[in-house]
Amino acid sequence: MIQKRGKTQTILADIKLKIKTGTWHVNFLMPTQRALAEHYSVNRSTIVEVIDQLQADGLVETRGRQGTFVVNQTWSLLASEQPKHWGQFVDTGFHQANQPIIQSINQLEFDERYIRLGTGELSPSLYPKDAMNRILTDVGLNTDNLGYECPKGSLALRQAISQQVAKYGIEASAESILIVSGSLQAMQLISIGLMSSDALLLTESPSYVKSLNTFQSVGIELQGVAMDDSGIDLKALLNQLPTGKSKMPYLYTIPTFHNPTGVLMPENRRQELMTFCNHYKLPLIEDDAYRELWLDSPAPPPLKAMDTQGNVLYLGTVSKSLAAGLRIGWVIGPEPVIDRLGDIKMQLDYGASSISQNIVTEWLNSGAYDSYLVTLREALRVRRALTLTLLETHFKDLATWNSPTGGFYIWLRLNKSVSAAQLFKKAVAEFILLNPGDIYDYEKNQYLRISYAYASHEQLTIGLRTLSEILHSF
Amino acid sequence: MIQKRGKTQTILADIKLKIKTGTWHVNFLMPTQRALAEHYSVNRSTIVEVIDQLQADGLVETRGRQGTFVVNQTWSLLASEQPKHWGQFVDTGFHQANQPIIQSINQLEFDERYIRLGTGELSPSLYPKDAMNRILTDVGLNTDNLGYECPKGSLALRQAISQQVAKYGIEASAESILIVSGSLQAMQLISIGLMSSDALLLTESPSYVKSLNTFQSVGIELQGVAMDDSGIDLKALLNQLPTGKSKMPYLYTIPTFHNPTGVLMPENRRQELMTFCNHYKLPLIEDDAYRELWLDSPAPPPLKAMDTQGNVLYLGTVSKSLAAGLRIGWVIGPEPVIDRLGDIKMQLDYGASSISQNIVTEWLNSGAYDSYLVTLREALRVRRALTLTLLETHFKDLATWNSPTGGFYIWLRLNKSVSAAQLFKKAVAEFILLNPGDIYDYEKNQYLRISYAYASHEQLTIGLRTLSEILHSF
Repeated sequence: MIQKRGKTQTILADIKLKIKTGTWHVNFLMPTQRALAEHYSVNRSTIVEVIDQLQADGLVETRGRQGTFVVNQTWSLLASEQPKHWGQFVDTGFHQANQPIIQSINQLEFDERYIRLGTGELSPSLYPKDAMNRILTDVGLNTDNLGYECPKGSLALRQAISQQVAKYGIEASAESILIVSGSLQAMQLISIGLMSSDALLLTESPSYVKSLNTFQSVGIELQGVAMDDSGIDLKALLNQLPTGKSKMPYLYTIPTFHNPTGVLMPENRRQELMTFCNHYKLPLIEDDAYRELWLDSPAPPPLKAMDTQGNVLYLGTVSKSLAAGLRIGWVIGPEPVIDRLGDIKMQLDYGASSISQNIVTEWLNSGAYDSYLVTLREALRVRRALTLTLLETHFKDLATWNSPTGGFYIWLRLNKSVSAAQLFKKAVAEFILLNPGDIYDYEKNQYLRISYAYASHEQLTIGLRTLSEILHSF
Repeated sequence: MIQKRGKTQTILADIKLKIKTGTWHVNFLMPTQRALAEHYSVNRSTIVEVIDQLQADGLVETRGRQGTFVVNQTWSLLASEQPKHWGQFVDTGFHQANQPIIQSINQLEFDERYIRLGTGELSPSLYPKDAMNRILTDVGLNTDNLGYECPKGSLALRQAISQQVAKYGIEASAESILIVSGSLQAMQLISIGLMSSDALLLTESPSYVKSLNTFQSVGIELQGVAMDDSGIDLKALLNQLPTGKSKMPYLYTIPTFHNPTGVLMPENRRQELMTFCNHYKLPLIEDDAYRELWLDSPAPPPLKAMDTQGNVLYLGTVSKSLAAGLRIGWVIGPEPVIDRLGDIKMQLDYGASSISQNIVTEWLNSGAYDSYLVTLREALRVRRALTLTLLETHFKDLATWNSPTGGFYIWLRLNKSVSAAQLFKKAVAEFILLNPGDIYDYEKNQYLRISYAYASHEQLTIGLRTLSEILHSF
């Protein structure tokens, strides 16, 4: 098999070179499969594989009985030749092995036949359609222009966010807030604007951020730090701080309803963490995407509220609580840092959608957001209870799990270690889409991220029962 | 002066090191200015400059008579230490010299006292408020969810764009279209996803793209190619193709109502250019942002419409014709290339705003866009005529200029070469904001980009008269 793959690659490279140099020009009729097999001294099946790949890359086209023709040479060739450019710094091994699963998830998510048991997004049925409709009308009536916004984003929105975060103890002027097109973009801005390539980003193990390429793609190393029921473990963190000047360490943390484990960091751990970071001058990125989704009682104040030294860059968003499709998030930090990130954002996309910014401003200022959150929490409580009951019914002998106090996620630990790839595949065959825990972790694990936020009640009921049957079959 | 600057930098670095290592910890009271001047053997004025810079970086704070205290150490220090990270590959010399002017423009644009004579954006008075209001209501009523979109963007929008571009001869399936958050993002995706760092990007000289950092920031070299009244000069282009394998060349072109010169490439030049690029296998990026803004007669078909070999990546947008703040653009190209760009986009920001996508879909499908364009062209014709009359009145002995047949720009060549920085400054003093031609060029020039799209009729009248007076004073 390995030898065959080697041959396929060699032949592919040879043919691409012919296309690139124009020896095989556009509309050139390729030799028959038989002739190619003979020429390269391989089986027909290898040639079929090569031609399939060339077709997938958009370089050749088979026209019925006429044969296979070269159709394209420049951009498609570039796209096919540089699959490693964007991810050239990505850790080899584990991460790449998982990439196909993430790509599958991204594609299958848009196929409505699938029950999505792990999706980190609100169910469409929770979408506040009537309120959004009223707000769109108001925004329309009040908008005299939809031009570019200033580098930090709409001032009105930044003022509204300043008031919103004050409710949980963050004092931030509008000037120290940057509007971004979702938190993911904030991470990109931080990685290219503030971190050098000798950076070491420490994160909880597991962590949502491990499933992304954002930091790795600019050469930043990620390292997981053990966590317990209260979040990141400070002894482990201390042990992992690089000694000497070998690496510049940073910490990325989700202290509130952690993704994927659902863990909530209590107030005393928060204080200890801040003391630790201040002592070791460890710059912190606090991702607070799930704060508004507390189900039992409000979460302790964010780390940013305890930050006296500008040590915390704080990320907020409406993607998890209102509508991911608005693509609105924010970064709060020291003003010169925000200025710098804003300057880079202007160079990347000239700012987030103005209409999205106006809509979020109206949600916040009208009070509609806070009222909506009350009903949203109620709906999520019902979903959490249903899901926990289903787990109790079907998974007692299969797994153990936590009972989250907010956010979307239950971190399900399977008693028996099974291959994530095999389980994923078997589930897909039953039209169930899973988020295997491996995606978020630094090593193989035996977890699944279960989300009670996305699938309908009926889908959760069917999906979890079916999943338990699949697991029994292993 | 140079020596003083050297000293300031040395002292700054020394103090930052003290802050970084914690020798000067947070809340540390700094020595007096006098003591510092003595310690470093410099004048008080140098110390004042150092402290101003530390304040601007957010590292220290002067508290009245109590003195100056260290307030911050981590993120602010990182931001202040890495000013060159993002732009580390940017050409030294000319481009950096202009950077301050672009930063000034970005800031002053949001000060309403200024008359903006060069802004590449529609005037707020041209914003179709009533139609947008109707569309927002329709979108609200028809939207059942604002979740994430699939990797290439909303299918409905891609279908609508497929129909729109068919009107000027581009055959593109929805699968070969990627929705982006504005054309600037498209360029970023292409630069990181398809171009290697040994790429040489050829552009018209001057070109809008020269004012950006997008390509340069990933190490791509830009080179200007001479243009004539019909656009890019093919003989010059041939001379500038790299020989051997030293560099991989690409072409970025704005053939239709070129930014900043307003030049329209006629059909025969388009055909010659396509033949040239196909022959030399030169991949092309066609930026067609201004196509819909023809004023006398529709522009010739885009290069993409003549592309039989997948040689053209086509960029479209509604930023120039409808509302820049929607942040919606599109890339059209071979499907495998679009797949790849879509995959990268997902890693950067999870797609463009869904609500913006829904709004643009509704504009296109309802026919409101095409009707609005008719009235927009009429308004732009009036503005063009006014501006040309004003130039005739005030600039006859000062400059020469073209009469554009579409787009936003008049490329004003001053008879007398004046310092762009001085002219910019003098104009700012009179509350006039200019876009000096240098920003877009590869060498100093004596042009100004005048836009008849943004300033009001009254502002154009006052602004151009005042500008002529300033020029006379040189």
